[in-house]
Amino acid sequence: MFVWRNTPGVETRQRQADRTRETKRKLMEATVECLVERGWSGTTTTEVAERAGVSRGAQLHHFRTRGELVAAAVEHVGAESVEALKRRAQVAEKSTHAVVELIADFHASDLFTAALELWVAARTDPELREQVLELQARLGREVYGLALELLDADDSKPGVRDAVQATLDLVRGLALANQLADDTKRRAHVVRYWARMLEEQL
Amino acid sequence: MFVWRNTPGVETRQRQADRTRETKRKLMEATVECLVERGWSGTTTTEVAERAGVSRGAQLHHFRTRGELVAAAVEHVGAESVEALKRRAQVAEKSTHAVVELIADFHASDLFTAALELWVAARTDPELREQVLELQARLGREVYGLALELLDADDSKPGVRDAVQATLDLVRGLALANQLADDTKRRAHVVRYWARMLEEQL
Repeated sequence: MFVWRNTPGVETRQRQADRTRETKRKLMEATVECLVERGWSGTTTTEVAERAGVSRGAQLHHFRTRGELVAAAVEHVGAESVEALKRRAQVAEKSTHAVVELIADFHASDLFTAALELWVAARTDPELREQVLELQARLGREVYGLALELLDADDSKPGVRDAVQATLDLVRGLALANQLADDTKRRAHVVRYWARMLEEQL
Repeated sequence: MFVWRNTPGVETRQRQADRTRETKRKLMEATVECLVERGWSGTTTTEVAERAGVSRGAQLHHFRTRGELVAAAVEHVGAESVEALKRRAQVAEKSTHAVVELIADFHASDLFTAALELWVAARTDPELREQVLELQARLGREVYGLALELLDADDSKPGVRDAVQATLDLVRGLALANQLADDTKRRAHVVRYWARMLEEQL
């Protein structure tokens, strides 16, 4: 069995690490799906374990509370979405309009909806609030850096920092307007208008 | 007792109408306060009746469900806030910057926080969703009209409609960023930036 090429210990640890990663990934995706479908109040650890097809024991081993599970899920899916956005940006048009549209559509997504559930719950839950504030700072920095990169902008120039921050506030406002009804058409108008403004600025 | 000047029936009905209005006002304000302090899940009809100092019977007479109570409260306090904003705008500076600041601060308020709780709850509650969509359309029209008036803008001119809508999406995004931590300082920067852009536009 070629044990001389790879000791059983190493192989077992590798397989275990893969399984752990796979379990976590399933839990993360099930959590976001559950937040979108049933909201914060319907996202219990039991419900998520069931959706993910993971035993309660395995789930509790990784995440002790609903707050931990949900914050980890938003962070994990957030990081994956940022990577997906970067890949999409590489093959997309490089115009300001195309980039603002990409960023706006990225925000008007299930991930934003899941994050909104977490943010609103955190407002009235002191322990969760601390956790989410950290997550907010990390995700905020990452999305700001990505927007800067995609817009090919230099924020050491005057006004650029404000312009990029305003763009991110705008797309969050647009994402909010998309929660109860499909706002795609109106969003396209506002995005086109904003991109024109921004292009003159940058 | 001067009953010849005002029949007892009319006087009683008048007093009753005043009491009803006063009861409703107390319930509306207690509801918004409760949403801000305890969120949607902590805003029960029992809790609101207690805060308002209104009997459960009187409350149930006016609002049968939590959804009815909360939607009415957001609409009532929303209308009152719009009036307060109009009064403030009359005595404030008329510059684009002063107006955008007024609108942004109006949104980064307890009323927005209460509305956000209602909107997020409505997303996963079909009955509430229908109700909130109507409210969203009414409030949206009202705030759009008010912004147009305060900015002294004419939306029959090209681009003005998009500019005002983008302003409202932006201030909603800014309000969202103010939920977990005080974002006043950053907001002031973004507002100043946007007011400069908008002034060139209008």
